[in-house]
Formats: sequence, C-alpha cells, structure tokens
Amino acid sequence: VPDGSARAALRIVLSYDGTDFHGSQRQSGRRTVQGELERVLSHLAGTEIPATLAGRTDEGVHAAGQVASVTDIRPAWDEIRYLEALNALLPVDCGVARVERVAPDFHARYDATWREYRFRIWNGSSEPLARRQTWQRRGAIDRSLMDEAARRLVGTHDFASFAGGGEGVPWSQRHATKRGTTRTVLMSSVRPLSPWWADRRDGQLIEVRIVADGFLPRMVRTIAGVLVEIGQRRRDADWIDTLLAGRDRRLAGETAPPQGLTLWRVGYAGDLPDDGAGEHE
Amino acid sequence: VPDGSARAALRIVLSYDGTDFHGSQRQSGRRTVQGELERVLSHLAGTEIPATLAGRTDEGVHAAGQVASVTDIRPAWDEIRYLEALNALLPVDCGVARVERVAPDFHARYDATWREYRFRIWNGSSEPLARRQTWQRRGAIDRSLMDEAARRLVGTHDFASFAGGGEGVPWSQRHATKRGTTRTVLMSSVRPLSPWWADRRDGQLIEVRIVADGFLPRMVRTIAGVLVEIGQRRRDADWIDTLLAGRDRRLAGETAPPQGLTLWRVGYAGDLPDDGAGEHE
Repeated sequence: VPDGSARAALRIVLSYDGTDFHGSQRQSGRRTVQGELERVLSHLAGTEIPATLAGRTDEGVHAAGQVASVTDIRPAWDEIRYLEALNALLPVDCGVARVERVAPDFHARYDATWREYRFRIWNGSSEPLARRQTWQRRGAIDRSLMDEAARRLVGTHDFASFAGGGEGVPWSQRHATKRGTTRTVLMSSVRPLSPWWADRRDGQLIEVRIVADGFLPRMVRTIAGVLVEIGQRRRDADWIDTLLAGRDRRLAGETAPPQGLTLWRVGYAGDLPDDGAGEHE
Repeated sequence: VPDGSARAALRIVLSYDGTDFHGSQRQSGRRTVQGELERVLSHLAGTEIPATLAGRTDEGVHAAGQVASVTDIRPAWDEIRYLEALNALLPVDCGVARVERVAPDFHARYDATWREYRFRIWNGSSEPLARRQTWQRRGAIDRSLMDEAARRLVGTHDFASFAGGGEGVPWSQRHATKRGTTRTVLMSSVRPLSPWWADRRDGQLIEVRIVADGFLPRMVRTIAGVLVEIGQRRRDADWIDTLLAGRDRRLAGETAPPQGLTLWRVGYAGDLPDDGAGEHE
C-alpha cells in the first residue's frame, strides 16, 4: 500500500531530438525541454514541480543522456512506474531512458563531475536521412589532422577563444564566475563512425568527442568549426595552441550549426567516461 | 565546348527522408519524390522531363538507394555537374548520392534485378532521436527467433498473405500481372545493429534485411509485423510456413508502420547483394 505522504527525489535520464525545441531551459511561451518535463511532472504530482537540468543545450541541439533532478515529488512511486508515466505523457521528441531514486539533496547540475558532447560531421554529398543529426560538409577533410588537433585541447585551459553566444552582454559579465573561462578537458578525440542511414563508401562520418568538467556557451560547436578548418588544411593543427593562448573569440572561425551536436552523457561521482574503443568502428 | 544538342540518359541514385513526402510516385497537388525530382530536372532542361523510379515507396518510407532513370535530357553535362546541380535545387529531405550516364534504353524499374529493403525496430524504452527511422516496441523480443523465421522466406513463394494495401480494389484485379503474387526472396535475415543515437545497452536495435526480385505492396512491413510477433513468442517460427501456404492477407497480423522502412539498394545486371557480414556489429 503506497504511503500517500511519502516523497521522492529523482534522477531522470532524458533524450530528445532538439529540432523542434527552443533549447533546454524554460522560457515563458516557448516550447523547451525543461518546460515540457516540468509540465508533465506537475501533472503527475498535482502541484508545481521544478526540475533542474545538468546541461544547458541550445535550440536545435540534441541529447542522448541529459540528466534532470527533482528534489521533492509525490507520489513516491517506484522507478519503473515513473519511467512509464513520463514516457506516456511526454511528447514524441522527448523520452526518458531511466529514472532513479536519489538522495533529496541530489542536484543534476552541481553534482555533475563531467559532461560528454559528441558532434557529427558527414563529409560527402547531400544526405537527407542524416540532416537532422549531422553537419554536412563537402570537400576533402583529413580526419587524422582533426584528431591530432582535438587532442591538443586536453588539459586545463582558458577556453575564452571558444566561447560564443551571449552577444550584447559585456564580456566581463558573461563569464564572471569564479572559474571564469577556464575548464578542464578530460578527453578529446575525433573518430570515424559507420553511417547508419546507408552503405555510403563515398564519404566519411566523423565524430568529435569531448569530455570536460564543464563547457562554455557554444564551446563544442566552436571547437567543431575549428577542427573542420584544420581537417580541410586551411589551418595547421597548432592553430589550437594559438587560440588557447589568445583567449579571444574573434580569433576562431565559424561556429558549427546545432544539429550536429548531442549532449551524450553526464557523469557523477564514481562514473568514468567511456573511452569508446571499438565502438561503431 | 559543350554540344548544345547532345542528350544524355541518366541513372540517378537518390536518398530521401520519407517523413514529409506523400510517397514516391507523382500525384497531382501533393509533394512526392518523383514530383520533386521531375520539377528540378525540368527546370535544368528547360522542358518537361519525366523520370522513372525503380521502387515505389509509401508515404513515410525512406530511401537510401532509390534509383531514377531519365532517358533523354539536355544538356549532356557530365555526372558531377548533374550531381551538384540536382543537390543544389532539390529540397533538403531529398538528395542525390550518384549520377551515372547510361545507355538510352536503361529503365530503372524494368532493368532492376533485385531490391533490398531494411526495416529497423528499436526494442526498448522511448527513443526520440530514432523515432523517424525505427518502429519502437517495448517488451522482450527474441531476435534469434525472428532470424530463424526470416530465413524461411528465402525462395520462390506466393506472398499473397503478405500483400497489403489496395483496399477497395477487387483482389483479383490487384495483382493481375503475369507473375501474380509470386516473388523470389534471395536473402532474408535479422541482425543486431548498434544504436547510433546513444550508448543504449538497455535495449536492442534489430534490423530486418530482405532482398527479392520484387515486392508486393506493404510486403516488407507485413513481414516485419509477423517477425515481431514471432520474436515476442506470440507465434512460432513455423507460422511463416502457414502464411506462405495460406495465401490470404487476413491470416497475417499487424502491418508495421512506415517510418522503420528504408529502400536500401536496387541491383542491376552484375550487381551482387551485400551479405553485410560484420557491418555495424
């Protein structure tokens, strides 16, 4: 017999197709991931339930493993029941992969120790079946040059040159937090992936994987743009070092578009990032 | 210097996301693949250019390797120029992977010796990032039972039990061609595929692959529905034999929805179907 007064704290692992969301964060009058999730949670609880998301994703960016936390919700259903109820009520472009009961003080954002993003580039002729999940670039790209450059990002650096967005806000206020624009990249590499939509041998699917303790706005998309320029031999791999030293966004090039980007996974104490060896290859 | 009077016959390999098309075949006033292709070809030629498609795909069905033939088009550009012009003018959900100059009597449909379709089933909890390309089914599915059943389809059989569509047309008129409802399945199997949208280990992506000399309307989708019922242990694998012998569509179950289906490849004289060993696995 369920105890009507029992309450639960939940960790919810979410995936979504970012195409039709105005980003992850609640905005009044716009369709967002947080907005949809809170609407459904509030409906189940019969009262307003706020949720916190681990990572902020821009309009058009997808998630395979976004994490939401809810600190105090009634009823205290078990995980499977919440999973099923949420999936029954959420729209088709947002789904729950896992629900876990957690301690009431769990915080999806503050407790995260790392986040992994993946960015996918289709280097070949037009691919309609992959357009919502890849950045499509024609013309030769040397993947090993991209990988060499990507690996130079590993370590603790000031990533100011890779921080986009926030236009109109004075620079000094945009990153006015304790750590400023310094982040620690734990892993950064570029790998081939098998195209899933066709047996295409006349092109290559390239995946950029980056794991860090945190990311600045548009950081992965700026990195993806820089790596592609290096792969196209318009710049050398040591351009990365110049950008890290320069600490000025105007030094970097084009920001890659959002549809290639997926928030892949969020790590908490005890979670190790996957090195991905052998996957999809 | 190009000769303005020279004409070309073309084989065009097309891919498309079927979500927003009313199927492949031209229909007045509706957005179809043939309609879009002919519009663009006619624009390039300055005169009406009909195109023939190798395979008829229903509303919502995708193609990775649909083939179109054009028997007589001017200018006689080279393949790359046509590829680029077509991709520049076609909508984003339809793209050209290859253009080849062929003999003027080449016919995409009549000259095809086999066609390959693939149908993808995500067996796990809700997956928004794969909803446009998979049929999502919860509950245990035994993939090896599906594979055992799929292999029973290989050979020349009367597939009347697997022919859907054409409601309202008397049965006798629907398949009133020389070969009626008999087709030869060259290959039929069920394999695991790595999910491309996330590291999901709490579900399985199942791919049905079928190569045949031809397909009846909704044949692959009816087969996919039957195979899933067998994988769910609601029927035995020898149900396939009963259906083949019964030759009545009412014997089979649910038709799987279109979004899981892709026309993968079309073979012509000399082309061998790929056995796919090791791919994506």
